[in-house]
Amino acid sequence: MRNFTFECATKIVFGKGTQAQAGPLAAAYGKHALLVYGGGSIKKSGLYDEVVRSLHDAGVAVTELPGVQANPRVSLVREGIAASRRDGVDFVLAVGGGSVIDTAKAVAEGVPYDGDVWDFFCGKAKIEKMLPVGTVLTIPAAGSESSDSNVITNEETHEKNGSASPMMRPVFSILNPELTYTLPPYQTACGCMDIMAHVMERYFTNEPHVELTDRLCTAILRTVLNNLPVVMRQPDDYDARAQIMWAGTIGQNGLVGTGREEDWANHVIEHQLSGFYDIAHGAGLSITFPAWMRYVAQSNPGKLFQFSTEVLGVEGDHYNPEHTVREGIDRFERVLRDSGLPTHLSEAGIGDERFEEMALRCTGGGVRTIGAYVPLGKSDIVNILRLAL
Amino acid sequence: MRNFTFECATKIVFGKGTQAQAGPLAAAYGKHALLVYGGGSIKKSGLYDEVVRSLHDAGVAVTELPGVQANPRVSLVREGIAASRRDGVDFVLAVGGGSVIDTAKAVAEGVPYDGDVWDFFCGKAKIEKMLPVGTVLTIPAAGSESSDSNVITNEETHEKNGSASPMMRPVFSILNPELTYTLPPYQTACGCMDIMAHVMERYFTNEPHVELTDRLCTAILRTVLNNLPVVMRQPDDYDARAQIMWAGTIGQNGLVGTGREEDWANHVIEHQLSGFYDIAHGAGLSITFPAWMRYVAQSNPGKLFQFSTEVLGVEGDHYNPEHTVREGIDRFERVLRDSGLPTHLSEAGIGDERFEEMALRCTGGGVRTIGAYVPLGKSDIVNILRLAL
Repeated sequence: MRNFTFECATKIVFGKGTQAQAGPLAAAYGKHALLVYGGGSIKKSGLYDEVVRSLHDAGVAVTELPGVQANPRVSLVREGIAASRRDGVDFVLAVGGGSVIDTAKAVAEGVPYDGDVWDFFCGKAKIEKMLPVGTVLTIPAAGSESSDSNVITNEETHEKNGSASPMMRPVFSILNPELTYTLPPYQTACGCMDIMAHVMERYFTNEPHVELTDRLCTAILRTVLNNLPVVMRQPDDYDARAQIMWAGTIGQNGLVGTGREEDWANHVIEHQLSGFYDIAHGAGLSITFPAWMRYVAQSNPGKLFQFSTEVLGVEGDHYNPEHTVREGIDRFERVLRDSGLPTHLSEAGIGDERFEEMALRCTGGGVRTIGAYVPLGKSDIVNILRLAL
Repeated sequence: MRNFTFECATKIVFGKGTQAQAGPLAAAYGKHALLVYGGGSIKKSGLYDEVVRSLHDAGVAVTELPGVQANPRVSLVREGIAASRRDGVDFVLAVGGGSVIDTAKAVAEGVPYDGDVWDFFCGKAKIEKMLPVGTVLTIPAAGSESSDSNVITNEETHEKNGSASPMMRPVFSILNPELTYTLPPYQTACGCMDIMAHVMERYFTNEPHVELTDRLCTAILRTVLNNLPVVMRQPDDYDARAQIMWAGTIGQNGLVGTGREEDWANHVIEHQLSGFYDIAHGAGLSITFPAWMRYVAQSNPGKLFQFSTEVLGVEGDHYNPEHTVREGIDRFERVLRDSGLPTHLSEAGIGDERFEEMALRCTGGGVRTIGAYVPLGKSDIVNILRLAL
């Protein structure tokens, strides 16, 4: 087990009706909020009205930044920074999913900074100061509601980069599972895949003696695997939605990565897929992970055997461990397919035309490896993509 | 699953050699620290010198408050408050286990308060302001290193009461498993029992649909059960010590209680045992828990069955569930006994003379019940103590 530092100060306010607390919570941090959101769904559901009323009742003035899209753009972040400076915004409230929260975080980075906000995403500047950010989460997936990082796309340079700082954790996040009832089934499934991916990127490690965090990972993965089929059948099952929502936060706040070397190869590969093709992040991960597992199992099967037995409940066959691993991956893939997720590139209409190009980009032109459980070079990535065809 | 609020901002600095960071961490919060510790063990081990040097190098002045005992006393807390005011202390650093940390928290409550500090422990005053507290943990047990509460004994009135506030969580805690190598085996085992007790007080609930937190509880319990025998054999096994130490913090920071009704009957009963008899808290819990389990299993076996199968690994016999439960409790008790803990009152030289008196005190004179999984009246408590004879 490695030395580590862990700190996650985000106040979680969880449960039915909790969005009514947005105003009082925001008022503890600011007098003028930038309200960041996406499209019409929070207006249709009435959530927009509830939050605006709550802010108003708490005496918090509001400037709006609507229009956040998936793969959120730096141009909108710049708009939000300009509007915040113009109106004297001192607090940023995100109402939505990961893209909305990541945009809110980026605005909060940019407002007190003299240069261009993209400096934080290309390594030119370090975050020294940020506005406080709060969130009302509507999509359990990215974990941005208590994580210390965000991802923003520069639509001019076609880069999708992250920034991170301990200061970036939201000061509070409101999680009401009821708000997730109306998520389309495909988006629900993509979110669950994203949640599991965050845990698996940490679970698959060569670091020995990490029993506690292994078991915590297993707890989260089994919970999501158990509850995903439930919400696919019954979208308004409060308790199943609640398990998934809380799992999504705990799985990405850094706790389950403490003391470990993490992997993140699948995220690197998936960022290429969603960069080149119009595919949801969760769907991309649902395609890369089974293929990645089959590939790395050839050289490093140990943790796959553990994953198959402890997470997927396969009876461990120590005489033929490769059977156990195969069955584990098959079962995992079956849960994903049963939830309507693609597990092969062909289902998303993606062929092998750009495998080389994507593998080159993943590896900085073929000079770097990605991942830690099995370090992957350019040809490994091409092989994994072939397995995913 | 219930609505909840969860917030734990304590910065955890975990691993080998981390005590060297005490000074720089403290300097971020104050210029003059009250150094709270117990007896000679931290002087013998060299930890005292390391911490004092680190504070000195970071430019932090030091006032000392040594002499904290088990069941820490309010008289020493008052001494610490007076010394802090005299010297202009603005930060409290605890170096030790739960008693030391609880004393440090109480001093931090009392310094900015006009009245007597015991007011916070008898419900006369509410905490409005506190000095920041940091810790260097040497005994994994109480979980006070990131919890929002403390327990102090008033030696004049023979009361052992708690106080709590979100402000009470330490701003940082340094956890170096190496510092626990020299703990006596009995104290190690008592600490593990205390850690498990904090989790079990939350695990045993009637709240339905708490799969995620049930699984997190199971993860922590299995980890402690697995690693306790290892450190009994090999006290300087870093990785086993590390699993236990991190489990102790996560198990008591409130995370695994989120969304649940908690129980805490065993803690109430044990406080009477350690109040009347000279018995370690963990040893008291090791006596009450198996008896409590056997007693409540008669009326509410459900969670005991789950505990037996998921935590203790008993094969679930759905035709004779009582066999499964009995085997689970037996196995649990066996781990405790194998670690040198008492599981019966007679082993601690305790007879049935004061059962009525203790049961009356637990229940406010027989008018209240304690616990939630099975609410226990006075006669239930006497019955449990009889089972523990």
